[in-house]
Amino acid sequence: MLNKDTQLCISLSGRPSNIGTRFHNYLYQKLDIDFIYKAFSTTDIEAAIKGVRALGIRGCSVSMPFKESCIPFIDQLTDSAKAIDSVNTIVNDNGILTAYNTDFMAIRQLIADHLPDSSQTVLVKGAGGMAKAVVAAFYDAGFTHLSVMARNEQSGKALANKYHYRYQSPEDTTPADIIVNVTPIGMSGGTESETLAFAESTITSATTVFDVVAFPAQTPLVKKGHALGKKVLSGDQVIALQALEQFALYTGVRPSDALMQEASVFSRQ
Amino acid sequence: MLNKDTQLCISLSGRPSNIGTRFHNYLYQKLDIDFIYKAFSTTDIEAAIKGVRALGIRGCSVSMPFKESCIPFIDQLTDSAKAIDSVNTIVNDNGILTAYNTDFMAIRQLIADHLPDSSQTVLVKGAGGMAKAVVAAFYDAGFTHLSVMARNEQSGKALANKYHYRYQSPEDTTPADIIVNVTPIGMSGGTESETLAFAESTITSATTVFDVVAFPAQTPLVKKGHALGKKVLSGDQVIALQALEQFALYTGVRPSDALMQEASVFSRQ
Repeated sequence: MLNKDTQLCISLSGRPSNIGTRFHNYLYQKLDIDFIYKAFSTTDIEAAIKGVRALGIRGCSVSMPFKESCIPFIDQLTDSAKAIDSVNTIVNDNGILTAYNTDFMAIRQLIADHLPDSSQTVLVKGAGGMAKAVVAAFYDAGFTHLSVMARNEQSGKALANKYHYRYQSPEDTTPADIIVNVTPIGMSGGTESETLAFAESTITSATTVFDVVAFPAQTPLVKKGHALGKKVLSGDQVIALQALEQFALYTGVRPSDALMQEASVFSRQ
Repeated sequence: MLNKDTQLCISLSGRPSNIGTRFHNYLYQKLDIDFIYKAFSTTDIEAAIKGVRALGIRGCSVSMPFKESCIPFIDQLTDSAKAIDSVNTIVNDNGILTAYNTDFMAIRQLIADHLPDSSQTVLVKGAGGMAKAVVAAFYDAGFTHLSVMARNEQSGKALANKYHYRYQSPEDTTPADIIVNVTPIGMSGGTESETLAFAESTITSATTVFDVVAFPAQTPLVKKGHALGKKVLSGDQVIALQALEQFALYTGVRPSDALMQEASVFSRQ
């Protein structure tokens, strides 16, 4: 039963889904933490964020289209949010709002854990919000040879230029040690769900395959990477890590991997 | 399990208690209504009310010290809130905030149901927020002979003058047909919990005894009224009616008297 001291966490997005609400509340119940979580939308991001502060709402997850527009109303941006000028997590400590980007934190962590050699070459395909997080995380980790490939040349060049990296057109077959897909290619439900995100020769030349697409975890690219014996990183690892970071920031509790996995499965039912 | 479409209602007060949170959530569960309710406080009433609107929080109960200070941020005041310039209930319809005072509504309803003769004389003891609601409700019902008695002469006179009623000093023993206590006298836990709110002679002369003190329901004044065979109205009736109105405004559902009583008992455990 709720009580006056129960902490509320919310999400703000243009099109709320049930996934976050189910995920967080499942963990609260399993861990016996006196929190509740509910998804919201808004047409007034300024009043919504100021309301989070004024009402003492403990945490606020931020999704499209508010990841940048919320920034003017935050008190403190941590380096993860500053790195890509994008916020997905706000923590309210007694009226002080601190913003994070746990997607960036998760990718930075995966690179630190699995890709220690920053002299390797990197090819990132995509130029959207998540691609920005990926490129910034490789930059942060000291990688100096990185190419951004994107169908939208303007976006691709802008992202590459920001870090003095190279733009590589989709026709250019220059290989790389680490290849990273951050486009919807291979995503279930999309028109290219059966498509390999990179040419077979590019995959063969690489030592590491990283697919940020999380649904399904087993994309054509991930399957091909495994089949060819490559080191493989996948989108479900990004999702799990970012969710863990967000949960820990709100509650101070870090659930076990097994419980996180359980909550993730529950959240998608 | 909460979901993205679950409606949130909140309360805003200087010192939140658990009573409202337990009362509303108990009814939501019993009636299988997809709502949750939680008490909040704030140090910024403007941002809090604007946040209620921006987040689509369905309802907001307002207590001390925000009943007047919230008014500038409301879109529409209904007559119940206008009558006493005091809000205790805000309903959010797609971003339009409409304010009510369900204490006033409850007292008006009790008068309409039980005190049909507006030519009777009335003596109201008290000059605080609830006394304002009582006096305004008698005025609204067409009573023309009413006296306000208050230890604080200035407040008492101000309230009486607002409706061209009479101020009656505590030493003045002029009787009345209907006597109403709106002071803490007789309230449990107070220094005057065993004190009769009116002189015995005043009670004897009256035909109706109305004690707005709700805790306990059986105040010394209520007991005396029953013992003397008077018509008796009590604070628990006010509380129950105002809570019913508030619940119906938020949810569109009017619980039975029995269920309201059950929720009320549960909320105080």
